Amino acid sequence: MLGSMAALLPVDAAPGQEAGAAPLISAPRLVPARSLPVPGTVSPPLQAVIGAPYPTGWDAIPTSPEAWRALAAQSSAAVAPHLPAIRERLGVTVEPSRIAGVNVFIVTPNDLPTANRDRLLVHVHGGGYVLYPGEAGAGEAMLMAGYAGYKTVSVDYRMPPDHPFPAALDDAMAVWRDLSGRQDPRRMGIFGSSAGGGLTLAMVLRAKAEGLPLPGAIAPGTPWADLTGAGDTLQANAYVDNVLVSYAGWVGAAASLYAGGQRLTDPLLSPIFGDFQGFPPAILTSGTRDLFLSDTVRVHRKLRQAGVEASLQVFEGQSHAQFLTPFVPETEEAFREIARFFARHLG
Amino acid sequence: MLGSMAALLPVDAAPGQEAGAAPLISAPRLVPARSLPVPGTVSPPLQAVIGAPYPTGWDAIPTSPEAWRALAAQSSAAVAPHLPAIRERLGVTVEPSRIAGVNVFIVTPNDLPTANRDRLLVHVHGGGYVLYPGEAGAGEAMLMAGYAGYKTVSVDYRMPPDHPFPAALDDAMAVWRDLSGRQDPRRMGIFGSSAGGGLTLAMVLRAKAEGLPLPGAIAPGTPWADLTGAGDTLQANAYVDNVLVSYAGWVGAAASLYAGGQRLTDPLLSPIFGDFQGFPPAILTSGTRDLFLSDTVRVHRKLRQAGVEASLQVFEGQSHAQFLTPFVPETEEAFREIARFFARHLG
Repeated sequence: MLGSMAALLPVDAAPGQEAGAAPLISAPRLVPARSLPVPGTVSPPLQAVIGAPYPTGWDAIPTSPEAWRALAAQSSAAVAPHLPAIRERLGVTVEPSRIAGVNVFIVTPNDLPTANRDRLLVHVHGGGYVLYPGEAGAGEAMLMAGYAGYKTVSVDYRMPPDHPFPAALDDAMAVWRDLSGRQDPRRMGIFGSSAGGGLTLAMVLRAKAEGLPLPGAIAPGTPWADLTGAGDTLQANAYVDNVLVSYAGWVGAAASLYAGGQRLTDPLLSPIFGDFQGFPPAILTSGTRDLFLSDTVRVHRKLRQAGVEASLQVFEGQSHAQFLTPFVPETEEAFREIARFFARHLG
Repeated sequence: MLGSMAALLPVDAAPGQEAGAAPLISAPRLVPARSLPVPGTVSPPLQAVIGAPYPTGWDAIPTSPEAWRALAAQSSAAVAPHLPAIRERLGVTVEPSRIAGVNVFIVTPNDLPTANRDRLLVHVHGGGYVLYPGEAGAGEAMLMAGYAGYKTVSVDYRMPPDHPFPAALDDAMAVWRDLSGRQDPRRMGIFGSSAGGGLTLAMVLRAKAEGLPLPGAIAPGTPWADLTGAGDTLQANAYVDNVLVSYAGWVGAAASLYAGGQRLTDPLLSPIFGDFQGFPPAILTSGTRDLFLSDTVRVHRKLRQAGVEASLQVFEGQSHAQFLTPFVPETEEAFREIARFFARHLG
């Protein structure tokens, strides 16, 4: 009968229900069309990011292997012209290399803090397991090196349509196996966002299963932890998020393409279905408009249920992975928090 | 030109903008009408809560002092019949009392853990500063006593229309001054949700200003920290949240009523505008559908910026303060987390 009371009443006394009656699930909620203004509660550069229109092509789903390859090439080509300025302004050096037969980019801060000399991060990039081949994928590693002061190895893993699951995970694990055998894994972290956040979690699951050393800490950013798309914000933030926009766009299609016929509930594809016991400390990052906010908070809760130290940061007004936007104050803030978390847990 | 790339591009390269051009704020985003299903990613009892329709009367704004008084009476009358079962099932004893001339309810777990014998919590209830006079307001304190095992003093503070700001804060401070002078404040915590979360923050601001002792930790649940209503989720989660529904309902009107002519940006009314330096460790709780998710994460970020230890937990699919629903697994989980946080910080 009245506003906020519902939250203080037992389930069986929720509005519209008789006390003692069996719980009644209503029809889906009809949310009316709305005009969503740009919030004044974030920095002006971030306001520009939040105010941007939906990306052209968000709902264009490639229908052939060639079209997927073209999309991947296009994604990296769009980022490439910006990489020199990013390297320069962040003060980082990027060196292509190979580790255990896998292409990587080694990203080093020009001014590496003494405390981080013996520390190393492994980065797995985002892009729905289909975008950002080559150096474009290492952009997040440049932010980590520049804003957080960590040397980082970014894995340029194989991707569909030519190399579906588990190729990306195999590549990331090959790099992890090699590096963690050569230096103290307790001084190493793994991080990545979106698909890279999912891969970060899958790497720990697989390292556990194979008896490999675990990293000292992880930082899954807005992890794509449930490829089945069950999280509530995939609905609630649809058309609110101006990066992915909706799971009905290319990203939902990328889930099937990456899975390559494997069940989407396989924990190495959708880590939310895995066992998080024994995981290293984790810091998770998302935004209030993020399509994957649910994936992020579900992982956070499940880590806490498993007794794992897990820290959650959610940024005002941000859509999917917008904490990766270079040269925005909130991006620096996000990475400084991750830097502090790693500093506390890496040896 | 393509899905998730926006997040990896500098601001001036966001979609729809020429590189190097001045940031361009687009028109407000038009979010289409949508059907929002009940998520399968939460417990069945919580599904019933999430699936409930909007509360009747959420958009009925009282237009006279008599109507506000009637609304307050109605809110407590709706909760009252459920209190005996809540006390019984949670195993708590509730005793009305007075401290420093203020009405309080002393809520004690029938089985008080030894570790908590010397600890005490002060509770300030929610309800937009207008609802839940009397024992109904102590419901959250019963959850804390029952699920978390803490003895709790719940303040039955004075409210508008008869007693606008700062009456509620004055009452809460009188209780705090008295109790913190009689026992070790480092073993004491303050908590509350919604208006109670805002009051919790305002109490610390005022204790700082008056040189009173600070508590050892605080737990502001989905704090109403910005009465101006500037947070992004007040728009993004409008009509998604099935508790408050929209700031255009009674809750927005309650802001002016409580302020009683004072500027809404006064930090004791809207703590987000205050100085959080020196705050005690804080644990904040919200939900992905919460109208006040932005208030919660903005407080979290601002605490972190001030160097305060601050922990954030966000529950899947929950609208405003639904972590207070009795007898739901997620409610127990939320309070157990708060209990652990208090145990770590209270002496």
